[in-house]
Amino acid sequence: MASKFFSEMNLRFLLYKVFDVVSLTRYDTYKEYDGKSLDMVLKAAVELAEGLLWPTFQEMDKNPPEFVEDQIKVHPSVKQFLKECGEGGWIGTGIPFEWGGQQLPQMIIQACTFIFAAANYSASAYPGLTSGAARLILNFGKEEMKRTYLPKMLSGKWQGTMALTESEAGSSLSDITTIAEPTESDYYKIKGQKIFISAGDHNAVENVVHLMLAKIKGAPAGVKGISLFVVPKKRADEKGLLVPNDVVTSGMFHKLGYRGCPIAQLSIGDNDDCRGYLVGEPNRGLVHMFQMMNEARIGVGVGAVAIASAAYYAALEYSKKRLQGRKLSTKDPTLPPVPIIEHPDVKRMLLFQRSVTEGSLSLLVQCAKYADLASVLTGEEKEKNELLLDLLTPVAKSYPAEMGLLSISAGLQCLGGSGYCDDYPLEQYYRDARIHPIHEGTTGIHGLDLLGRKVIMNGGKAFKLYLEEVHENIGEAEKFKELGSYVQKLKESLELLQKVTAHLMEVGRKESPELFLADATLYLELFGIVSVAWQWLVQATAVVKALRNSPGEDEANFFTGKFFAFCYFFEYELPKMEGLAKRLVRSDGLTVEIKPVYFSD
Amino acid sequence: MASKFFSEMNLRFLLYKVFDVVSLTRYDTYKEYDGKSLDMVLKAAVELAEGLLWPTFQEMDKNPPEFVEDQIKVHPSVKQFLKECGEGGWIGTGIPFEWGGQQLPQMIIQACTFIFAAANYSASAYPGLTSGAARLILNFGKEEMKRTYLPKMLSGKWQGTMALTESEAGSSLSDITTIAEPTESDYYKIKGQKIFISAGDHNAVENVVHLMLAKIKGAPAGVKGISLFVVPKKRADEKGLLVPNDVVTSGMFHKLGYRGCPIAQLSIGDNDDCRGYLVGEPNRGLVHMFQMMNEARIGVGVGAVAIASAAYYAALEYSKKRLQGRKLSTKDPTLPPVPIIEHPDVKRMLLFQRSVTEGSLSLLVQCAKYADLASVLTGEEKEKNELLLDLLTPVAKSYPAEMGLLSISAGLQCLGGSGYCDDYPLEQYYRDARIHPIHEGTTGIHGLDLLGRKVIMNGGKAFKLYLEEVHENIGEAEKFKELGSYVQKLKESLELLQKVTAHLMEVGRKESPELFLADATLYLELFGIVSVAWQWLVQATAVVKALRNSPGEDEANFFTGKFFAFCYFFEYELPKMEGLAKRLVRSDGLTVEIKPVYFSD
Repeated sequence: MASKFFSEMNLRFLLYKVFDVVSLTRYDTYKEYDGKSLDMVLKAAVELAEGLLWPTFQEMDKNPPEFVEDQIKVHPSVKQFLKECGEGGWIGTGIPFEWGGQQLPQMIIQACTFIFAAANYSASAYPGLTSGAARLILNFGKEEMKRTYLPKMLSGKWQGTMALTESEAGSSLSDITTIAEPTESDYYKIKGQKIFISAGDHNAVENVVHLMLAKIKGAPAGVKGISLFVVPKKRADEKGLLVPNDVVTSGMFHKLGYRGCPIAQLSIGDNDDCRGYLVGEPNRGLVHMFQMMNEARIGVGVGAVAIASAAYYAALEYSKKRLQGRKLSTKDPTLPPVPIIEHPDVKRMLLFQRSVTEGSLSLLVQCAKYADLASVLTGEEKEKNELLLDLLTPVAKSYPAEMGLLSISAGLQCLGGSGYCDDYPLEQYYRDARIHPIHEGTTGIHGLDLLGRKVIMNGGKAFKLYLEEVHENIGEAEKFKELGSYVQKLKESLELLQKVTAHLMEVGRKESPELFLADATLYLELFGIVSVAWQWLVQATAVVKALRNSPGEDEANFFTGKFFAFCYFFEYELPKMEGLAKRLVRSDGLTVEIKPVYFSD
Repeated sequence: MASKFFSEMNLRFLLYKVFDVVSLTRYDTYKEYDGKSLDMVLKAAVELAEGLLWPTFQEMDKNPPEFVEDQIKVHPSVKQFLKECGEGGWIGTGIPFEWGGQQLPQMIIQACTFIFAAANYSASAYPGLTSGAARLILNFGKEEMKRTYLPKMLSGKWQGTMALTESEAGSSLSDITTIAEPTESDYYKIKGQKIFISAGDHNAVENVVHLMLAKIKGAPAGVKGISLFVVPKKRADEKGLLVPNDVVTSGMFHKLGYRGCPIAQLSIGDNDDCRGYLVGEPNRGLVHMFQMMNEARIGVGVGAVAIASAAYYAALEYSKKRLQGRKLSTKDPTLPPVPIIEHPDVKRMLLFQRSVTEGSLSLLVQCAKYADLASVLTGEEKEKNELLLDLLTPVAKSYPAEMGLLSISAGLQCLGGSGYCDDYPLEQYYRDARIHPIHEGTTGIHGLDLLGRKVIMNGGKAFKLYLEEVHENIGEAEKFKELGSYVQKLKESLELLQKVTAHLMEVGRKESPELFLADATLYLELFGIVSVAWQWLVQATAVVKALRNSPGEDEANFFTGKFFAFCYFFEYELPKMEGLAKRLVRSDGLTVEIKPVYFSD
């Protein structure tokens, strides 16, 4: 087992130096906090991660949930973890004080999520899901519903879920067929099937609260007929005792990774006795759900970069200890072998990992900051931060998800044959992380979202604000001569992105939606590279400042290494834009025109 | 389970139309064969693959080998498969008739390997390893050794292995410490430890024959002191009975994938009673072994593209059946959903897979043809084919290995959440294939081999021959106007490759070896892209010819689809050169200069 799964120094650098989380405490919402108390939250998260999550990381994978009779049994540490999450307030980090929450800024919440997920991604999913479900109830539920569910959920005694997917409705949620029939009472009768429900049932909690999408009988077709319900596994009877609510676990999926958390198949209302309680307005379910979905998407980005971070530190530790080969300039076999971290190709792989993980994490903290500012500001400033968050959500979800896989694969490669064996954690990271380009919207869906929706919304306002943001940071970076050549590269990259975007907009105006969006996934990739380059320039600006302040040896090494990772990103990753841009301006309709029959052999 | 794991039409197209395997039968070595008999070999391979390998593909993964006491127990189908391999002559495909082999050309051998590996990679490894070991004994062993081992190995009763790696000697074989002490008899006493030995021990055979690297006591340090030995698990005593040879299985590794084949750790000579028999000359072991290694490297390429092929057909089948969403131009939710193969992004992922697998397979058959021609020609022509094979071996191993992973990942992505679950085979392909960038030399090692050895050997003769070959094929393609714009693109790509190569040669002359080779892995990637583009142009030339010959409907669809895949490669993959070339001409020493201490946090 590696001894480290994330860098506290880097996380603090991002939160305090780059994004100045403490500045949020000047707003009413966060005025109860100061630098010291925020720091205590981080310390407590590290303690919980190191004490409980990290030690069970491999064990939970090797002893995955079992589906016995009609109940899923999970690893015993889940129960303990949820208990500690409840007692420590970790489920209610984003819930207001008045409802027993911690009312913390998203920047700190995501930092803690990152720490938990890096230690043990599967375990971190349980409280994360409950937390998201609780926030939905808080924002759209009636008073009584909040009183019934929030205390139980925040204490970790009840699990929350997102119950969206059906076997015939995955990426296309408009096709869900779960039905909600109104009754004379305050509930609907729910009937249907759901699949792929994370933590959808397990024995570490007393109850499971599904935030479920269903269609009210007679609702219009498509997404405009979807409503949101609370559907508990058990409901209270007249005496207040919990009785079954006709939500039955009918199966459990066996997965490539992320095995510590069960994914359930649910049969709802088979005996015509399942009660669901409307959340928010009828037929507005998807709009409501998207509040949770958008948070969940940022959460997926955080989970992806967390696993990549843990993989990086495992690869780094190995590369420092493992002796193999000699320097290319001194091939004398009688000399002792060197640690493989001396080989440029290994350093290249390590820098790749560091540039992807630290660059992605910065983008995610940036997004969290937009969310925080949107929540405390008003008017135009609020809108600006909302738009930037909306625009960047598909990028902040997909770049870490996709590049995290390659980063972890590079980590595994550093270990050679040992990376392929379960004596080291790399093979598990490789499996665990593969879920991220899939759940909460596949990468393809996010490409469509970015190009087909976000870039063009409000007449392109979000995209314009984005360019302004980047230019503002460029202006700051330009003050430092060490950054000169990189500033120039980012300017050119922005121009290329604008050129490609303008070309696609033109296609969108003149041609079919198919052609406009055919390479949306590549556009998302391009946007991701530019955005992470931007984040690296922002970080590098802070690094240069820090290095001028005569840091101690450890800090100096950290900052110097970080500067190398920044250079790496600009020298090795940013050039990938060239090929993407070349392709994106072609719009020749290759993938539109090919007929299915040509795949016939 | 998908119903198809490879395309027979495509394989036949490559063998007969593109590379004209039948032309080899004009040479003495292959004169016993004609088109019909070669075809029967292929048919028999398909039959064996469909009858025995494909049905046990998932089962072998779910019931991996067990290490019980001192023996590894494998899936019962292995024994049956090895028996059929022995009876059908599949282990001796590359062995001369006089030794009971089939004396087949490499093109057919690799085609059969491809079929077996696509059906069940783990199972295909057993006879493949024996085959390689047998060829080593054939080429370098003494007459008596051949008589002792070849019949048993070719019958499938004895397993062959490559026993190179030790815990302190992986990529750096010069550091092996297994010792061979001469005796007064015809054997050496062997003592040491080996790890990561594929099929290194199992209960489906009567004996295991290790082709083992060891150092004769007093040999020089480094690779020049390595010798090759046959070290059987059991040796014959005076009466000819098999008795233990002090080769003990001390462990078995648990792997991410490729689980149907055990990877053993061996303790050799712990009781001072292990006999090894020298193969070839003392201290020439690595040179001898490289004959097997080079074949094995092509074999890894074939294995990688085979798994990618199977993944592609599984993804294709799913994409045709799975109904989800509507066309972007007709988003009316009351219309029925379409098969996802109608969506451009899914077609993009399928074309990516097809362009990688069929392009890689073409390169591998091309390499097999070089091997065949080298074996039948003499003088300058022989040398030419040898040099081309040598140059392309690292490319033909690494491109399919690395790009195969991405191809399989794209296949998994087509299935969304289902791809992550073991109801479909994609998750297994994803795990199985991850071994390929590692075994038989990591990708990093092959980068060093290509740039540091192959491109510069014989004064750059191989590279010059390569350029000539590509230009010859360009000349042929230029006759077809349909190919005009692609011919131009390939010419430009070749120029870019030459420019990058010239730049690196200059760095090699003037700077340190570290700087010269710092980005060798990226150079390998660049070389791979150009080489697969070349192979696609070669294939496209044959496609255009075939389409002019009024093919039937099925063939016309196959060829049209293939032309799309060709276009895809040139439009989406070839542009990736741009970013790579931009990086490769920088040679700024980023990965040379960063000190390990900068990774300190």
